[in-house]
Amino acid sequence: MESFTFHNPTKILFGKGQIANLGKQMQLDGVHRCILVAGGGSIRKNGAYDAVIDSLQKASIQHSEAWGVVANPRLDKVYEIINLAREYKADAILAVGGGSVIDTSKSVAAGFYLNDIWDAFLQREKISKALPIYTVLTISATGSEMNGTAVITNTKTKQKFGMFSELIYPKLSIIDPTLQETLPFRQTANGAMDAIAHILEFYFADDKALSTIAINEALILTIMQMTDILKSNPKDYVARANLAWCATLALNGISGAGLKGGDWGCHAIEHALSALHPEIAHGEGLAVIFPAWIEYHCEKDPSRFVRWSKKIFGEDNPTLGMRRFRDRLQNWEMPTSLRDLGIKHDELEEILNMIMISDTVGAIYKLKKEELRSLLMLAF
Amino acid sequence: MESFTFHNPTKILFGKGQIANLGKQMQLDGVHRCILVAGGGSIRKNGAYDAVIDSLQKASIQHSEAWGVVANPRLDKVYEIINLAREYKADAILAVGGGSVIDTSKSVAAGFYLNDIWDAFLQREKISKALPIYTVLTISATGSEMNGTAVITNTKTKQKFGMFSELIYPKLSIIDPTLQETLPFRQTANGAMDAIAHILEFYFADDKALSTIAINEALILTIMQMTDILKSNPKDYVARANLAWCATLALNGISGAGLKGGDWGCHAIEHALSALHPEIAHGEGLAVIFPAWIEYHCEKDPSRFVRWSKKIFGEDNPTLGMRRFRDRLQNWEMPTSLRDLGIKHDELEEILNMIMISDTVGAIYKLKKEELRSLLMLAF
Repeated sequence: MESFTFHNPTKILFGKGQIANLGKQMQLDGVHRCILVAGGGSIRKNGAYDAVIDSLQKASIQHSEAWGVVANPRLDKVYEIINLAREYKADAILAVGGGSVIDTSKSVAAGFYLNDIWDAFLQREKISKALPIYTVLTISATGSEMNGTAVITNTKTKQKFGMFSELIYPKLSIIDPTLQETLPFRQTANGAMDAIAHILEFYFADDKALSTIAINEALILTIMQMTDILKSNPKDYVARANLAWCATLALNGISGAGLKGGDWGCHAIEHALSALHPEIAHGEGLAVIFPAWIEYHCEKDPSRFVRWSKKIFGEDNPTLGMRRFRDRLQNWEMPTSLRDLGIKHDELEEILNMIMISDTVGAIYKLKKEELRSLLMLAF
Repeated sequence: MESFTFHNPTKILFGKGQIANLGKQMQLDGVHRCILVAGGGSIRKNGAYDAVIDSLQKASIQHSEAWGVVANPRLDKVYEIINLAREYKADAILAVGGGSVIDTSKSVAAGFYLNDIWDAFLQREKISKALPIYTVLTISATGSEMNGTAVITNTKTKQKFGMFSELIYPKLSIIDPTLQETLPFRQTANGAMDAIAHILEFYFADDKALSTIAINEALILTIMQMTDILKSNPKDYVARANLAWCATLALNGISGAGLKGGDWGCHAIEHALSALHPEIAHGEGLAVIFPAWIEYHCEKDPSRFVRWSKKIFGEDNPTLGMRRFRDRLQNWEMPTSLRDLGIKHDELEEILNMIMISDTVGAIYKLKKEELRSLLMLAF
């Protein structure tokens, strides 16, 4: 088992009605003026917005609103909200939404104190200060509500990059599963796939962190079971709640303890896909890439996938396990090929070049350009 | 799934050689003078003491030493170290040892600012301030390295009570599994049983936190597998490391998420046993009480134990699962009856009266005095 550091200071309030505690918690932390960051308006429909405003008002916390964050959130929006936050003299950022809204908020919180936040994504600048971040989660997927990572797309340069800082862990995140009852199943499935992908990026990285591996199996199995239930009954609270908590644990440090930081090759591939085609949802891209990645590696050395196949799908043969995985995703009506995602064959070389920003992709299973080409052909 | 709060700010440095980073971390936090709290001297044999002193010296952190903390740590020792810490004008407490040393250190850190720390255990006084706590763990068992709980025995009143405060989470804990290589197997097994008991106190509390329940099964299975390995090969690093991490997760909030705070009936019973007989190790007491507790409840309603029996022992019938549990503990050479612990039949009434400080014991499975008497007879 590899040595590791675990440190996650985010406080989670989990359960129905927890938004009522938001304002009071912010008040205890000394917040007076926050920027409420949001997406396209779904939070007006699911009740989150009204509950947040009510909670802020009761705690006498002033706020200004920044709407319009989109999926695969954009750098230009981050700049816009940083300007607003400075003008407003905000002392906190409040994200009400999913991973895109939270990642935008984290970038604003750190960018508030920087000349150009994109330099932090390019690792040219170190984050040394950030406004405190509060989140109200409305879709379980990225795990951003309980980690120090943000992923932002620069549409000018067609780059989708992530950054990490100890300083952008949310101070408090509220996870109320009832807010997710009205999500279309497609979004629930995308979120589930995203969480599974986070776990798998760690899962195959080493075979000695037996405790974390066993926990990760428990998480994957629970995610799949809960998603199956939600397909037929989107209002099942037990399924919503357990899926939500698994998605948080999938990327808060627990799923990665002792697993060498994970591989992250599939994420690098997916980031290129959705940087080129911003209409591709992150979970959909991963649903195409991860089974293909497993298929590619199974052909070379199935031995590293035997435990996974057996524990998750009850199949001794990992190629059969991989097929069961793809079947499950198809059953969730997810795309399973690059073609399904609307990607054309003549785009593959461009995608390949976007992914290959260094000699290999993936920290553990280092794929060279030729290998990646074969993988993309399998995915096509 | 019950609503819950999760907040655990303790930073963990996990792995071989991590003590080397201790002094630097304390220095970064502004520590100048700490009290090193320790037990009987095992840390001189396993190398922890020398490594700690070296790390403190390199970071120019001064220290004074307080030795002699015993298993079932005592209030008089806490008072003694509080006096030392005040005289020394300490600005941090450094625990180097197991749960007893850490719990003593937490009590000192909080008691430093109180008139009488025992009032906090009696819930007459609230902790509003504490010195920062650092720990170097030398035996995985109590989980105290990553939680806000301390358990102390008042030998005058024969009371063994616990307290919780957000303010006594260690700031940093170092878990180096190699420090545990030289432990006698008896202590490894006691620690494993303690960790299993922490998980079980939560496990049976509710059946709706499916994510946490699945994680808890992964933890229990891993603990049992690793302990089996360590019985024949105490120096197996992978087994030591995975057992250590499971024991930390067993009581750091992860194992309890959505499980109503747990039952804690078995711990209340065990606390009475070891308050009366301080020579009884906590893990040994639990090895006797928990199977008896399951047996008692199985006789009344086996349905709540079916999943546990099946997932952990592959037995559909929970009475058989309970027997497999007891067999495993016997295989670890643990006591499995009150008689094995050296308790005499005529002590049972005194024990019963010590446990029954209110009308029922256990927050979920509320046992009345008559029921507890039956349970103790089963355990006898």
